Amino acid sequence: MLPALSRVAVCGGTHGNELSGVYLVHERLKRRKKSQVMEPVAVVTVMSNPRAVQRCVRYTETDLNRCFTHAMLSLSASEQTSYELVRSQELNSLLGPKGSAEAMDLICDLHNTTANMGLCLITYSDSDWICLHICKYLQARAQHPRTDVRYIHYDIPRSEAYSLDSVGKHGFAMEIGPQPHGLIRANIFMAMQEAVQLLLDWVRLFNSGAQFEGGSVDVYTLVKNIDYPRDPHTHTIIAAVHPDLQDRDFCLLHPGDPMFLSFSGETLRYKGKEPLYPFFINESAYYEKAVALSLARRRKVEIPAIRSSRM
Amino acid sequence: MLPALSRVAVCGGTHGNELSGVYLVHERLKRRKKSQVMEPVAVVTVMSNPRAVQRCVRYTETDLNRCFTHAMLSLSASEQTSYELVRSQELNSLLGPKGSAEAMDLICDLHNTTANMGLCLITYSDSDWICLHICKYLQARAQHPRTDVRYIHYDIPRSEAYSLDSVGKHGFAMEIGPQPHGLIRANIFMAMQEAVQLLLDWVRLFNSGAQFEGGSVDVYTLVKNIDYPRDPHTHTIIAAVHPDLQDRDFCLLHPGDPMFLSFSGETLRYKGKEPLYPFFINESAYYEKAVALSLARRRKVEIPAIRSSRM
Repeated sequence: MLPALSRVAVCGGTHGNELSGVYLVHERLKRRKKSQVMEPVAVVTVMSNPRAVQRCVRYTETDLNRCFTHAMLSLSASEQTSYELVRSQELNSLLGPKGSAEAMDLICDLHNTTANMGLCLITYSDSDWICLHICKYLQARAQHPRTDVRYIHYDIPRSEAYSLDSVGKHGFAMEIGPQPHGLIRANIFMAMQEAVQLLLDWVRLFNSGAQFEGGSVDVYTLVKNIDYPRDPHTHTIIAAVHPDLQDRDFCLLHPGDPMFLSFSGETLRYKGKEPLYPFFINESAYYEKAVALSLARRRKVEIPAIRSSRM
Repeated sequence: MLPALSRVAVCGGTHGNELSGVYLVHERLKRRKKSQVMEPVAVVTVMSNPRAVQRCVRYTETDLNRCFTHAMLSLSASEQTSYELVRSQELNSLLGPKGSAEAMDLICDLHNTTANMGLCLITYSDSDWICLHICKYLQARAQHPRTDVRYIHYDIPRSEAYSLDSVGKHGFAMEIGPQPHGLIRANIFMAMQEAVQLLLDWVRLFNSGAQFEGGSVDVYTLVKNIDYPRDPHTHTIIAAVHPDLQDRDFCLLHPGDPMFLSFSGETLRYKGKEPLYPFFINESAYYEKAVALSLARRRKVEIPAIRSSRM
């Protein structure tokens, strides 16, 4: 028996050039204005970074989705404070405060990636039964993305969790790709629209007292990030992701497999000792973060049957 | 008999987030520094917008590749002048002056697009035998892009030509996609590298007096641009390119064919009276220019045999 999820937030535009979430939030806000639909669960729809959305950039001064640590949320604002840090504190007031009883029960933050990742829920926990059950529900029902729905786990202490979804009691980033930033592809938009609908269906069912059977979910836990090969002096990138690896997110990478192709034509191989699952392969926003791809270990997590305490 | 092409410019980074050209120029400048190779033709390699490259944005204040009209090149600079206008005048000094005998014989300006256009040469002329013969040569020899090499013609008076390549006696933008801006895909990089190599091979052959046989080239002449459907009040986009049209650049679009899919699920159709060839479908940089796609008419242009006057 788990508490009901009476307050849910759907956020988009946390990165202003990831347009599926931006337009999905636009549409939800418009429909709400028109029809004043009363949903059976209180759903707050939020455009997280309106200034970045307006300029169609990821962020204006600093990455908003790295501003939600307890430390950053408790900094006092000065004239030098970035727009995004100020905005993170506003969002924390609206959707949190983080770690408090008043915080949203569930935050779903909508993102796009240039990587061929299909639909992923990205979380900080491999034992959040709510998030894991939502993932299982999407896996069984999502029609639009032909690829699997996957569950990614960043093994970071709760206190260091930095993203908007960490403000809720439960939360995840819903990441869908491939889609270049700054444009919208109809198929990716429809996949996100469907997934948000399924998510809200699940919450309504859960709140109505429905029992969700146990089972298992494959969890991909981040092991490490790998940077592009760079010139030691200028720090300029000297190789691209290898054509054999490009677009093969979640296909097991073995030691010795091609990883990069240098601009002069040399193949550079994966030197790790253990086969791992690559994801976020060639995400354009991560060039500045020195991440060419991430590598994960996969394991099956058994999840119990759940139902809400409110019948 | 045509004059030899003794001075050729290869430019990249005119848009700072179109990374194939940026890294191709990096590599050429590096190799030149290392080996001081003397090429049989004087090739100048130019990073057109270093400030935009450094920030990985299309431009910093205004689109550099719209600054090369005679009118803009002759504006006198003030404190308010944008970085890009100042830079266009510098580039005009370096590679022009536009319209003068001192101008480069040929300018190849490297670009990427998010559209599925393969490799295109974009020009202002459908009777520039040099550009048309280069296109024919690439069509016969380019291996990397599986798609055809195509020739696009913007039917604009020479005096209003606005792009960097218009500074040369001959010139074109070499546009390759699909590639999201702000990242590099190895296959697209290799296609561009090969095409630049073939272009320079052609110039060397031409200058050595080789005869190039006549033939024909399909020319796509821009007829009109089409914007995304927008909310009449807020001007916000209300539909995406239809999944049946997305990625189908240069596939004939017939009256009544699906063109857009609204965010509420409605299909909007092409209302033109004439079947036309779409290109630049869903190019992210053109959202701000109110262009969802361009439409072209195709015709076969017969080109004569040519050789250079310098033997």
